Amino acid sequence: MSEHPTAALDDVVHQRHRLGILTIADEAGKVEFGYLKSTLGLTAGNLSRHIAVLEEAGLLVVEKGYEGKRPRTWVSITAAGRTALAEEMSALRALLDRHGKRG
Amino acid sequence: MSEHPTAALDDVVHQRHRLGILTIADEAGKVEFGYLKSTLGLTAGNLSRHIAVLEEAGLLVVEKGYEGKRPRTWVSITAAGRTALAEEMSALRALLDRHGKRG
Repeated sequence: MSEHPTAALDDVVHQRHRLGILTIADEAGKVEFGYLKSTLGLTAGNLSRHIAVLEEAGLLVVEKGYEGKRPRTWVSITAAGRTALAEEMSALRALLDRHGKRG
Repeated sequence: MSEHPTAALDDVVHQRHRLGILTIADEAGKVEFGYLKSTLGLTAGNLSRHIAVLEEAGLLVVEKGYEGKRPRTWVSITAAGRTALAEEMSALRALLDRHGKRG
């Protein structure tokens, strides 16, 4: 496999909206759908699609419930999600270090 | 627009293979197709598609010529390409800083 830092990036994690979802879920542990939607400036449909990709990959779990009478969806990062995010971050750090050193 | 660092990322630049092409072209100024292909571990078809997207966006210029009798293709980053890459890098740096600060 190529040693360039970008070769270590995983499209499931690296896609910018999914990267946003994972970093917020990693910070918050558990985060509500509406908060993600407004913070990332996504449509509900677009956000749902990206959450489904991350859930399918085992990086997030989705919980449905109610806040009073209002249906709510929460998203939590899994251990695999934290690991995948940490790998993405270290590849991005290597890329930034390399970019910083150029002449 | 959302203030989350990932909202400032541009898919044309952020896609991992295109990010690899831009960072190498930024380091080298002008880089040969074969070198990009082997360094990034891409197929010729895949690399050509990503180069076309970057050229279309005005971030790269493509030059065709010969080395001796052998046809060669070179790729150079444009000023717009350097600016776009710098914006990507500062968004990634903000993301890493934020990720580093979480509890």
